[in-house]
Amino acid sequence: MTQLVDLAEQLIACPSVTPASGMVFDALEAMLAPLGFEIDRFVTGEAPDGPVENLFAIRRGPKGSRHFAFAGHLDVVPPGEGWTTAPFAPERRGDLLYGRGAVDMKGAIAAMVAAVAEVPADAGTISFVITGDEEGPAVHGTRALIDRMRERGDIPDLILVGEPTSANRLGDMVKIGRRGSVNVWLEVDGTQGHVAYPHLADNPIPKLVAMLAELDALELDDGHEWFQPSNLEITDLEVGNPATNVIPAKARARVSVRFNAHHTGEEIAARISEVALRHGGTARPVISGEAFLTPPGAFSAMISAAVEAETGIAPELSTTGGTSDARFLKDLAPVIEFGLCNATMHKRDEAVAMADLETLARIYARIAWTALNG
Amino acid sequence: MTQLVDLAEQLIACPSVTPASGMVFDALEAMLAPLGFEIDRFVTGEAPDGPVENLFAIRRGPKGSRHFAFAGHLDVVPPGEGWTTAPFAPERRGDLLYGRGAVDMKGAIAAMVAAVAEVPADAGTISFVITGDEEGPAVHGTRALIDRMRERGDIPDLILVGEPTSANRLGDMVKIGRRGSVNVWLEVDGTQGHVAYPHLADNPIPKLVAMLAELDALELDDGHEWFQPSNLEITDLEVGNPATNVIPAKARARVSVRFNAHHTGEEIAARISEVALRHGGTARPVISGEAFLTPPGAFSAMISAAVEAETGIAPELSTTGGTSDARFLKDLAPVIEFGLCNATMHKRDEAVAMADLETLARIYARIAWTALNG
Repeated sequence: MTQLVDLAEQLIACPSVTPASGMVFDALEAMLAPLGFEIDRFVTGEAPDGPVENLFAIRRGPKGSRHFAFAGHLDVVPPGEGWTTAPFAPERRGDLLYGRGAVDMKGAIAAMVAAVAEVPADAGTISFVITGDEEGPAVHGTRALIDRMRERGDIPDLILVGEPTSANRLGDMVKIGRRGSVNVWLEVDGTQGHVAYPHLADNPIPKLVAMLAELDALELDDGHEWFQPSNLEITDLEVGNPATNVIPAKARARVSVRFNAHHTGEEIAARISEVALRHGGTARPVISGEAFLTPPGAFSAMISAAVEAETGIAPELSTTGGTSDARFLKDLAPVIEFGLCNATMHKRDEAVAMADLETLARIYARIAWTALNG
Repeated sequence: MTQLVDLAEQLIACPSVTPASGMVFDALEAMLAPLGFEIDRFVTGEAPDGPVENLFAIRRGPKGSRHFAFAGHLDVVPPGEGWTTAPFAPERRGDLLYGRGAVDMKGAIAAMVAAVAEVPADAGTISFVITGDEEGPAVHGTRALIDRMRERGDIPDLILVGEPTSANRLGDMVKIGRRGSVNVWLEVDGTQGHVAYPHLADNPIPKLVAMLAELDALELDDGHEWFQPSNLEITDLEVGNPATNVIPAKARARVSVRFNAHHTGEEIAARISEVALRHGGTARPVISGEAFLTPPGAFSAMISAAVEAETGIAPELSTTGGTSDARFLKDLAPVIEFGLCNATMHKRDEAVAMADLETLARIYARIAWTALNG
């Protein structure tokens, strides 16, 4: 695995702010083709959520062998300001490799490329499920890849998502589920008027305030065996009335709910809409993802064993954090997420410890090997 | 009073969006000087609340005679869009005279000019207390005039403010008081964070919502002999957070209180600040005016009698509506407000019934005459 850091650098060197296409996929294709992978690249979707490039690469094992899939994304979030390196010019400094995507998640993709190079082709079927739009709207990304795999009849037995799940040390956390997410835009209409004549107006703000007080007090559940309690946050208020003597005609708010496997997005949306309606308002919910859980079992035990063998750490099985494309992949096969430390992801000076890259590749090789022989 | 409408037209024809100075004051001076008034014009204040022009005109009666003052303003609110006439080109159409300031309150000033022409100079002392900034910040307007009158030693016995107090018919309402007004800017600070990790953030919005719910439920009083109950309106909410997955660092709101003579601005401000503080926020109150009341008595009876004699209507003695410069003048002498119908004030196509102008001038003449002989 001596050229692993080189592989990561090659991917980082291709600017790929979401949605990504072209060059960065060419770079990955050039790594996978020599390893015997058959490459299927396609562009899908139209503005504003597309077009998006996706790549499905498969190396078939003997007929009837198991199929292990690695899923990830080549797009990155915008670098932002204040870097001490050029975000898309990877730089080794001390023990670290700097560059946008180093941990989220070009580093992990490079690690899996290096890992599969160590797994004999006849061990079983391995595939890469790589999108150019995980950080963006994700409408034409992994969902399109799932459709493609169904059309091809290439349904994996297990899926590992390479998101940066480690917190303080590589291997300390594996994600076996994620909460679902729904955002709701709330609005109350009233009648504009002068504050001196409130009886001629209908102030929408007290209704919105009462609605939000009730929503804030809502206890969605008191937790779940594998999840923290579902949580609602009020994330925005908006009236935009500069006139001190005017009662405004409209008041708006937005709430964001992260919910566990006790709920569906539909149900949460309906519950919030009912409260909004009762307080004279309206609700426009947008479900970003359903909760998912791959209950602890053979798959998670196998990943934990691989992590522990290489790091000495027994990883925590967690369902915390934001959403990932595992929310879609769960419909295809059992899915678990494991990857690098996430401390610098989405931040300036994103960097990965080069030793972690090597360790991750060894863990990934163990996982792939065991998955195919499990 | 045949040229009364001409006088109103001359004032309307001078554009005088607040703060007003120059031409419109020249026009008024040209009307008052021939009637024997001594004119004292002065400009005061600096940006942003000034400079502002003010005019104090006095016609002295015999030594020891009573002093009746008429107060008003020559500035007008901006005309805005959608007029069917040119706002500063007065136009007679049917029974109406159109133009910005027709009712608020160049028409009333013209009516008082015509009225004093009918009052013999030896009946007593009459003054005009006219500012160019009533519709604006009003920092260097009537307050400066009050200072000037105090310096001159010209303190009236009674003050009539010519604001448009009539509602549906000329004479149906006289204002013997006004509520006070205080606006309070509320703010709660928190700690920004990701909605998926609420324990690492401190959302300021629920605190603001709880604060506003308590303020909205506040019963300041259940009314006053001469006032409606004090009232609090929430007039603005502001967070300005476009990111659905971010808990914001700050949340703001604004409330507006109109309060009756049971309260002072200071006390209302302290009460709101206490609630804000208790919910982890801060309050920045700005008192725009204290409540005032000239309790019904000889002065109001005299005005009612003058109105009834000319219109047949017994006016309602009211304390409703927004603030006026009477909030300052009350410190100088008993003050009551009476003027034209306010239906079109601050609106497009502001217009006055020309017959109302004539009736108002006769009412004003009666009031001036009785005030000096009362």
